[in-house]
Amino acid sequence: MAAGPVAQRILQGDRRALARLISDVEEGREEAREVLRELYPRTGKAPVVGISGPLGVGKSSLINQLIQQLRTAGKKVGVIAVDPSSPFSGGAVLGDRIRIERDPDDPGVFFRSMASRGHAGGLSQSTRDAVRLLEAFGMDVVLVETVGSGQVDVEIHDIATTRVVVVVPHLGDEVQTLKAGLFEIADVFVVNKCELPGADLAARDLKELATLAVPRDGWVPRVVLTSTVERKGIGELWSAVREHESAVHEGGGSSEVLRERAEREVRGLLQEKVEQLLQEELLEDPAWARLLDRLMDKEVDPYTAADRAFQELKRRL
Amino acid sequence: MAAGPVAQRILQGDRRALARLISDVEEGREEAREVLRELYPRTGKAPVVGISGPLGVGKSSLINQLIQQLRTAGKKVGVIAVDPSSPFSGGAVLGDRIRIERDPDDPGVFFRSMASRGHAGGLSQSTRDAVRLLEAFGMDVVLVETVGSGQVDVEIHDIATTRVVVVVPHLGDEVQTLKAGLFEIADVFVVNKCELPGADLAARDLKELATLAVPRDGWVPRVVLTSTVERKGIGELWSAVREHESAVHEGGGSSEVLRERAEREVRGLLQEKVEQLLQEELLEDPAWARLLDRLMDKEVDPYTAADRAFQELKRRL
Repeated sequence: MAAGPVAQRILQGDRRALARLISDVEEGREEAREVLRELYPRTGKAPVVGISGPLGVGKSSLINQLIQQLRTAGKKVGVIAVDPSSPFSGGAVLGDRIRIERDPDDPGVFFRSMASRGHAGGLSQSTRDAVRLLEAFGMDVVLVETVGSGQVDVEIHDIATTRVVVVVPHLGDEVQTLKAGLFEIADVFVVNKCELPGADLAARDLKELATLAVPRDGWVPRVVLTSTVERKGIGELWSAVREHESAVHEGGGSSEVLRERAEREVRGLLQEKVEQLLQEELLEDPAWARLLDRLMDKEVDPYTAADRAFQELKRRL
Repeated sequence: MAAGPVAQRILQGDRRALARLISDVEEGREEAREVLRELYPRTGKAPVVGISGPLGVGKSSLINQLIQQLRTAGKKVGVIAVDPSSPFSGGAVLGDRIRIERDPDDPGVFFRSMASRGHAGGLSQSTRDAVRLLEAFGMDVVLVETVGSGQVDVEIHDIATTRVVVVVPHLGDEVQTLKAGLFEIADVFVVNKCELPGADLAARDLKELATLAVPRDGWVPRVVLTSTVERKGIGELWSAVREHESAVHEGGGSSEVLRERAEREVRGLLQEKVEQLLQEELLEDPAWARLLDRLMDKEVDPYTAADRAFQELKRRL
């Protein structure tokens, strides 16, 4: 597909056009998707590194030092901070949590914070699309940072090719269990604050856990020790990421990681369309309000109400 | 609808039948849904109290004391501990986090831990259904406890009629922001561990925040101070819950809370059906694998692939 004027501006490195287009993506504008189609052939090569972990493990400092390292090596870096936050506040609440140190005059870094705006596609697809735009814009590496843990992290991890989970040596019991949950979605573990006692023990535990993981694209999760205070281990972290990226891309069309990601994306986009259809055909119809009235009066149970709405939907397609 | 033999056993208070049926619900069995249809007219009256909050605020102790209080008042209590955990581990990891003290000989308490088993309906619907079963079984109150915060909590809060969020006086900066996020989904705030300094200040802050909330069914979020160490405030907590339940049920068919809940449930059930259709009609078809092959070879972009799959789905209905 030929690149239209907006796509051209992205390819030429127009920062304002990029920022505006990411906003369009967040708002779920159809025009933005057209540009994404045009730019798609220019994407898919850059490492996309998801970085998550419990609160307070020093993710921001780690990312800052990783950016410095990449810039020193001449790499251009896109950073997306994903803020799941509350579905009601649209992410405004946690907006001030992002503490990436930015040199506003460095054209080799583009930082963007993203929050759920509640449109059909949702945060995962917006983030996927923003990653593509950053790559088409010319970024050599895209970092995707998330806050918290749980479902949203999992979704965001679906977007990354390499999933980094950051922990610290001494976590309480509660966070230990979270760590075990995160374990299943990590390609690289970082034990940050490794100047603290217990770091070697934590690393050993994680390495032991890693042997239990089912390898994807032949990769067994790696464990790296870092200290942002002592500026240690950032190089090792980046090496581990690069090795994982090689393992994934060597597989080409048969890479498990890439294939799963692609399948999930198309499935998500398909659900988005079905959701839109549901909205337009059914939920905006006065019959829907009447069905709810009957439900409130207990004249019908929710299971039967859903059955009827489904039959109606099928009839209308 | 006449109650069949399984429904009869639930209505007669058969604990083993109840436990088995909740497992069937978790596994998404169609027979379980038939029983739910039969029991539906016997449900919808009991307070369903969602209890959530950040880790470490003492939710389990608070719930234990609340159960004691309710038992002393002669109320039968159902407790569902919802364990979102990792979507991969199926909740096994956090399984040991549940620390409700149970008297196995007390027939007035039924405890159940629920985790996502990955079937189409998902954890929200399983929990909704389990709440109904507990009520049909004869429980006067159902408590729904969740771990963590974020998206899953929001969904679980959709199930409760009264949403209680527990915090403690001194939370770090990070957790303060979480609190602000949770604020929007609370009907009653509990400042637990109120024997610690700063409790009154925290309560005052929350009360101030509560005045900014958009009232639903005329209810402005209430703030209650509790201490499980000094056994204080549990009665006040229960009074606040009861007042909120009255505010909701007074509205009857026009209650905003009940109507929103009902709408979300039917919508969720409808999506479950559409998802199932998608699975059967499309994703199990060899054409889907071929589409993914073309996607991996970059012969098609994901947006176009989703468009085609959607057209195909419409054609088949």
